[in-house]
Amino acid sequence: MSLSNIQQSASQHLPFGDQRGARFYGTDILSVNQFSKEDLAYIFGVAVEMREMVARVGTFDLLKGKILANLFYEPSTRTSSSFTAAMERLGGSVIPIHEVKYSSVSKGETLPDTIRTLECYADVIVLRHPEKGASAIAAKYSKKPILNAGDGVGEHPTQALLDLLTILEELGNVENLTVTMVGDLKYGRTVHSLSQLLSLYNVKLHYVSPDILRMPPEIIEELNQKGISQTEHSTLEQALPETDVLYVTRVQKERFDNPEDYEKVAGAFIIDPEIMKAAKKKMIVMHPLPRVGEISMDFDDDSRAAYFRQMEYGLFVRMALLALVLGKA
Amino acid sequence: MSLSNIQQSASQHLPFGDQRGARFYGTDILSVNQFSKEDLAYIFGVAVEMREMVARVGTFDLLKGKILANLFYEPSTRTSSSFTAAMERLGGSVIPIHEVKYSSVSKGETLPDTIRTLECYADVIVLRHPEKGASAIAAKYSKKPILNAGDGVGEHPTQALLDLLTILEELGNVENLTVTMVGDLKYGRTVHSLSQLLSLYNVKLHYVSPDILRMPPEIIEELNQKGISQTEHSTLEQALPETDVLYVTRVQKERFDNPEDYEKVAGAFIIDPEIMKAAKKKMIVMHPLPRVGEISMDFDDDSRAAYFRQMEYGLFVRMALLALVLGKA
Amino acid sequence: MSLSNIQQSASQHLPFGDQRGARFYGTDILSVNQFSKEDLAYIFGVAVEMREMVARVGTFDLLKGKILANLFYEPSTRTSSSFTAAMERLGGSVIPIHEVKYSSVSKGETLPDTIRTLECYADVIVLRHPEKGASAIAAKYSKKPILNAGDGVGEHPTQALLDLLTILEELGNVENLTVTMVGDLKYGRTVHSLSQLLSLYNVKLHYVSPDILRMPPEIIEELNQKGISQTEHSTLEQALPETDVLYVTRVQKERFDNPEDYEKVAGAFIIDPEIMKAAKKKMIVMHPLPRVGEISMDFDDDSRAAYFRQMEYGLFVRMALLALVLGKA
Repeated sequence: MSLSNIQQSASQHLPFGDQRGARFYGTDILSVNQFSKEDLAYIFGVAVEMREMVARVGTFDLLKGKILANLFYEPSTRTSSSFTAAMERLGGSVIPIHEVKYSSVSKGETLPDTIRTLECYADVIVLRHPEKGASAIAAKYSKKPILNAGDGVGEHPTQALLDLLTILEELGNVENLTVTMVGDLKYGRTVHSLSQLLSLYNVKLHYVSPDILRMPPEIIEELNQKGISQTEHSTLEQALPETDVLYVTRVQKERFDNPEDYEKVAGAFIIDPEIMKAAKKKMIVMHPLPRVGEISMDFDDDSRAAYFRQMEYGLFVRMALLALVLGKA
Repeated sequence: MSLSNIQQSASQHLPFGDQRGARFYGTDILSVNQFSKEDLAYIFGVAVEMREMVARVGTFDLLKGKILANLFYEPSTRTSSSFTAAMERLGGSVIPIHEVKYSSVSKGETLPDTIRTLECYADVIVLRHPEKGASAIAAKYSKKPILNAGDGVGEHPTQALLDLLTILEELGNVENLTVTMVGDLKYGRTVHSLSQLLSLYNVKLHYVSPDILRMPPEIIEELNQKGISQTEHSTLEQALPETDVLYVTRVQKERFDNPEDYEKVAGAFIIDPEIMKAAKKKMIVMHPLPRVGEISMDFDDDSRAAYFRQMEYGLFVRMALLALVLGKA
Repeated sequence: MSLSNIQQSASQHLPFGDQRGARFYGTDILSVNQFSKEDLAYIFGVAVEMREMVARVGTFDLLKGKILANLFYEPSTRTSSSFTAAMERLGGSVIPIHEVKYSSVSKGETLPDTIRTLECYADVIVLRHPEKGASAIAAKYSKKPILNAGDGVGEHPTQALLDLLTILEELGNVENLTVTMVGDLKYGRTVHSLSQLLSLYNVKLHYVSPDILRMPPEIIEELNQKGISQTEHSTLEQALPETDVLYVTRVQKERFDNPEDYEKVAGAFIIDPEIMKAAKKKMIVMHPLPRVGEISMDFDDDSRAAYFRQMEYGLFVRMALLALVLGKA
């Protein structure tokens, strides 16, 4: 649906006159680029309300009678469970669809037909697909809202939203923060989306990575044009002391032609209590999870370790988005 | 349960005196052959009510507290999701059982035991199984109603019911229609069941298929005896202009010994806007889905393209059947 | 949580002053060894209430709004479905997580992180894992209660509880019964746990097994010290006539080096109507299921065949445990 149609239809359907909430009614959530700073503030406001409701009553019937089709073309226990929990905590139901055989979107056949089938059954569709652009194709064919839960090397917008909400809630503000991204910055979908969201604010970015896994030049260029201060590093040392948010990602062995090259660099990016002595007392360490050794379990009990709380913010953001696209927030 | 037992028990349990609805209480849905014309009219009446309720309120609590075991020995996203949605839109819950390892029913062990376990947990069981007759075996052992969601080369009665409902709702009537079935008529479970259901009405049938995939002679003979007019064709040309319902099925490459033979015929049965110029303005094109090229996506926006609406009728038929066998319709 | 914390917190949270029920609030169910005779009596009392409620109303809203994460690292249709049904019959919701790739707990990485993610979404976690001790590790990291649904060669406490409840409900009492365990007593997790639970009562045990599958000496020693009478046999003949509970388990071919050795013994432990002529009129035959020929289907209609009713007791025990650990029973 076009935006003007949506707004018109929303103002007809919604029992309240809130044009800001109405703006999301029936929309697809495909990319971080679709959100203005005001949109983010609104979504996060709803997410924080969701947190309060969950703390108070656990579950409530805002989306009672609504059905979510949770369509995963590749496994992702974490994301799939999070959307399922979000829908269930809002009193809605879920159709879990996890055993889908992979079938190429590029052939243009199966995905549109699957989506047009599911829109007959469900009120909203969450889609995880291994191919970039799959969620946009799905949205093109669906009359029901599509939430992109990751489309290959493309985007994973709800992850970026929960990352930003984590920063906001843990540190109170995003403005004037120094955010250091560590690990695989070349292939890491998460850091690409997050850096784009952060560029809406006045932040300072450090990129710490092995040479072959540096942040793509086109992203650096894009943020440069927005006036964002960016510095690249090959070790943590210089950036860590002034860091407010340390965003750690996994360095995959398979990225290296030579296993020895991997061994050489991998250790340099492991976060543990010793290294964290150089960091501020008030800062947070984040990770999109799952981790495979990038953050030592010894650090888990440190109050700065925000990565499990981050998972919880994911629940609240997804509850907020589901409620918003279904016109109930 | 025997039918007389069921009727007796139903009239005791049901809060209303409707003997027609009561007739379905506790019954298994195994085959299209179990339905009379009056049964079909009753089921479709309930299905149309379900459509109205879904349009009005989306979901309602007719089966609140009831549990469906969705037991799939082979994957079928479409059918499984449809039954899940049907149960959830009626306020009931689902136990999804999709990872069952295939174990031969012919050995007589596992399926009866699995069914007797599930009847301890659930109020109704939907069964998809690769072996013909599996649902009848399940029904023999189960005290709870079994809905056959496809048993190998056997039957898939809810598909045939939704096909017939689609014709009824889209064209207003089944009597005196010309129905043309296209594609693999030899192995297509769907066309076998549908032709049997249609033989209850006064219809004219055209069969269009490659020579090696013709409608089985025993079905032709059976319908002959019921006085149904049937004509076989090797191309669409002759039948298309007078067709009210064009039922398209997939021709699988694997059916041909020689790939060249496949290539020769496959193209002759592809439905696209050009070919459909020869068809009536008021007619419908159906397909059990998934399609793999038998109907061009270019035709999807044509109002005669009924195959996605067909999916929706599937939801309403399954809602009706669940409500009926649980004595709540 | 430590027990004293739990009790304190429970007495604050629970609307009633029942210290016995409160004792279970927030606890993990990891092992049969954690239960006293009084605990068992309490759990079974709640289970019997659950049975009455299910018979009367099918489903009720005791756990409405509560979410169960059903985390299965290996498939177990029966156990998984039983927990799902238990949660749904109590009005709660389920996050089904069945496609988890196996990742070694011994590496200490994935399971704790997965658990800490799921505790953000769910109120209670059921865990099935191929490694012994996995549920204890999960409990160590989780703030939400963990129910062990089988951890490799470790324990499967809810199975042992349902076995004991079956005996109690079918025979009225456990005291002074003669229980005969048949089949693979060496590797059978079920018989190990059950014998431990039974040792809380005054029972007489017979063990009937092939020589290479005898009950482990450490279990025999442990029960000896508790004063339990135990006798080993290589055939059923002697024990059967005085048996009150015949607990049959599967003898797996793979346990034998030589297939001929298997063929020689397997037949000796098959229960059928002929053999059962030597047994009492009032006694029960149990089996943890699935069976593969150990009990002839010809015996299924005998009133002493309790193995399908046993499945139902499993539902009631799991409903009781879920309600108890969530402070609602």
